[in-house]
Amino acid sequence: MKILVTGFDPFGGESTNPALEAVEQLPATISGATIVKLEIPTIFNRCAEVVRAAIVREHPDVVLSVGQAGGRAALTPELVAINLSDGRIPDNAGQQPVDQPIQTNGETAYFTQLPVKAMVAAIRAAGLPSTVSTTAGTYVCNHIMYQVQYLRATEFPELHAGFMHIPFLPSQVTERPNVPSMSLTDDVRGITAAITAIVQQTE
Amino acid sequence: MKILVTGFDPFGGESTNPALEAVEQLPATISGATIVKLEIPTIFNRCAEVVRAAIVREHPDVVLSVGQAGGRAALTPELVAINLSDGRIPDNAGQQPVDQPIQTNGETAYFTQLPVKAMVAAIRAAGLPSTVSTTAGTYVCNHIMYQVQYLRATEFPELHAGFMHIPFLPSQVTERPNVPSMSLTDDVRGITAAITAIVQQTE
Amino acid sequence: MKILVTGFDPFGGESTNPALEAVEQLPATISGATIVKLEIPTIFNRCAEVVRAAIVREHPDVVLSVGQAGGRAALTPELVAINLSDGRIPDNAGQQPVDQPIQTNGETAYFTQLPVKAMVAAIRAAGLPSTVSTTAGTYVCNHIMYQVQYLRATEFPELHAGFMHIPFLPSQVTERPNVPSMSLTDDVRGITAAITAIVQQTE
Amino acid sequence: MKILVTGFDPFGGESTNPALEAVEQLPATISGATIVKLEIPTIFNRCAEVVRAAIVREHPDVVLSVGQAGGRAALTPELVAINLSDGRIPDNAGQQPVDQPIQTNGETAYFTQLPVKAMVAAIRAAGLPSTVSTTAGTYVCNHIMYQVQYLRATEFPELHAGFMHIPFLPSQVTERPNVPSMSLTDDVRGITAAITAIVQQTE
Repeated sequence: MKILVTGFDPFGGESTNPALEAVEQLPATISGATIVKLEIPTIFNRCAEVVRAAIVREHPDVVLSVGQAGGRAALTPELVAINLSDGRIPDNAGQQPVDQPIQTNGETAYFTQLPVKAMVAAIRAAGLPSTVSTTAGTYVCNHIMYQVQYLRATEFPELHAGFMHIPFLPSQVTERPNVPSMSLTDDVRGITAAITAIVQQTE
Repeated sequence: MKILVTGFDPFGGESTNPALEAVEQLPATISGATIVKLEIPTIFNRCAEVVRAAIVREHPDVVLSVGQAGGRAALTPELVAINLSDGRIPDNAGQQPVDQPIQTNGETAYFTQLPVKAMVAAIRAAGLPSTVSTTAGTYVCNHIMYQVQYLRATEFPELHAGFMHIPFLPSQVTERPNVPSMSLTDDVRGITAAITAIVQQTE
Repeated sequence: MKILVTGFDPFGGESTNPALEAVEQLPATISGATIVKLEIPTIFNRCAEVVRAAIVREHPDVVLSVGQAGGRAALTPELVAINLSDGRIPDNAGQQPVDQPIQTNGETAYFTQLPVKAMVAAIRAAGLPSTVSTTAGTYVCNHIMYQVQYLRATEFPELHAGFMHIPFLPSQVTERPNVPSMSLTDDVRGITAAITAIVQQTE
Repeated sequence: MKILVTGFDPFGGESTNPALEAVEQLPATISGATIVKLEIPTIFNRCAEVVRAAIVREHPDVVLSVGQAGGRAALTPELVAINLSDGRIPDNAGQQPVDQPIQTNGETAYFTQLPVKAMVAAIRAAGLPSTVSTTAGTYVCNHIMYQVQYLRATEFPELHAGFMHIPFLPSQVTERPNVPSMSLTDDVRGITAAITAIVQQTE
């Protein structure tokens, strides 16, 4: 099995993106599955082109995208992506869509094919907080999750795909004492545990 | 310089206490200061006797007590201890004082001698969230902080002493996805940074 | 214009449901629109039958359902309902669906027809906190929002429909000092402001 | 019995102060006690002079000061005031003390004489969230609470005095959907309930 794991580059004035850092530190194989790591730009549509090219090149069985959800305290696999973009801040190319469908002929929403409850259970078994999230928001995280589902619906029907949000790193909240964070080591452990669950359920 | 660092044993139904685990993992010396580690019981008064015995035995220059503050997201050096105990749950010996002074002839409160702002700055410089706290509560954490100050006032006038609260470990909040936590590794890094600041300011 | 406003009866061990109480206190007309109030049971499917019967009987132009979202601090119009029920607790009839589609032949999700951003702006102009929510959860609130959309898709194409979550009442959190709440008076003011925005945008 | 109730004027860029508004709406008598209302400036030391003048003029039995604690969700009678001022923002006269004792010959801290637990119970019985707070911070709220206690210790030994924090008003958080608030009506009800408890316990 081959799993493509994507991480966004930094955005919103942050100098780092825990998603990208965590993805880069994943091992080369997890539970026998080959892990292919991919940095994607925090840019609407462009990020989807980069993922599509990697799908064409790598033929992964699974795409797991990882993104930062500042303010959350737990690792949160996402259940569903919706066909709407609505940015509070511009992306890294200056685009800021408002109430815009992602694909005019796409479904209103797509559920993930990933076993989100099993992923949560595996993360908790690794000693880390986790819960299923029912919203990936309306920014680039929801966008890429939706776009990969749209690619699945239109081009790659065998693909299993999904998204996982991770908290801020401690270094991002040094002066915000009430904002939860998670260490990079734990991000890596948690994503690894989630991928193990994906491998077990997908085989 | 010698620094006595204390950690409470588990309480309140938790099977672990991050304070104790973190203290046990501290290095033997920090910035040239000798670190003496001490497990103390989560029992009113008894914990103070254990610390007093260690002070008599070890002659530390500094006592830093560490305790868990479930729900906090940051490492929080405490500014002040108050002369009151009021437990919502019994301690590990079944005692549950209600609105009780800790020392009938003690001060209403004692400020720490530790450089709390420098400690916060050092923790932040280590990439971890921190802020000064102005309340250690009314349970055993405030109790031991007060008791060590009382020992200072009555027996060991040269002593510098204080308290630092640390968050839950991730493993304590696996099913509480909104409750912040901090990894043990970061606890150890943060306490080490704080002690470095103590050494620099106290010399 | 006629607006059907629904409120759930109490559930989850609470003796009251702010949604129902607020709905009952709405005026008979708002901005010229007739307000029809409807109590619905906190029971999967049964609640939808009750709403359908009221739609058949009353021929409303708009259905606005109101429900409690314990823990939220603001009035939150919902953007989207998803085709999934997953209850952490049983409903008032003891049903507890797990990962169950609401309608096997329904869309994956439906967006509301209500002007959620205008509703938020109107609520804020009334001096109350509000934001658009992108998840109504997976319990009865999402269920009724989805079901009314499904009725629209299959039977009542002219209908505009949506959902708004409101916080706990203060009386529900007297001993939970960190949980936000909102007064019934403000619930009523906020829902009224939201309905005013609906009337203005729908005419 | 006569109770002097003080409220601060607005500060920190806010155009309103719920404390002052709530105090102004209190009834003239509560449980037979005469309520004397006093606006005080959000200025270190100057606020204490204004309270002292009112004590000299009015001879109250009790002084209850009320202030805003933005971010809290409940009404929180304060247990203790500490002899330290440390402002993150300047007061309304531009003063910003850093780590400064309030009275060089004052106690480290003073406990309130008010029955904080009975106040909490009375507020909860009125259907509102409340808990005892063990820190009034290090800004003007702690300052005035400390200063009135110092006046008691040095000039007015018969006085009973204390402080209560109240949340933001809803109108202060319209665009901060995660920040809790409380309506002015409920502030007034809660303060009234707390004063009723004070009257009953003090007689």
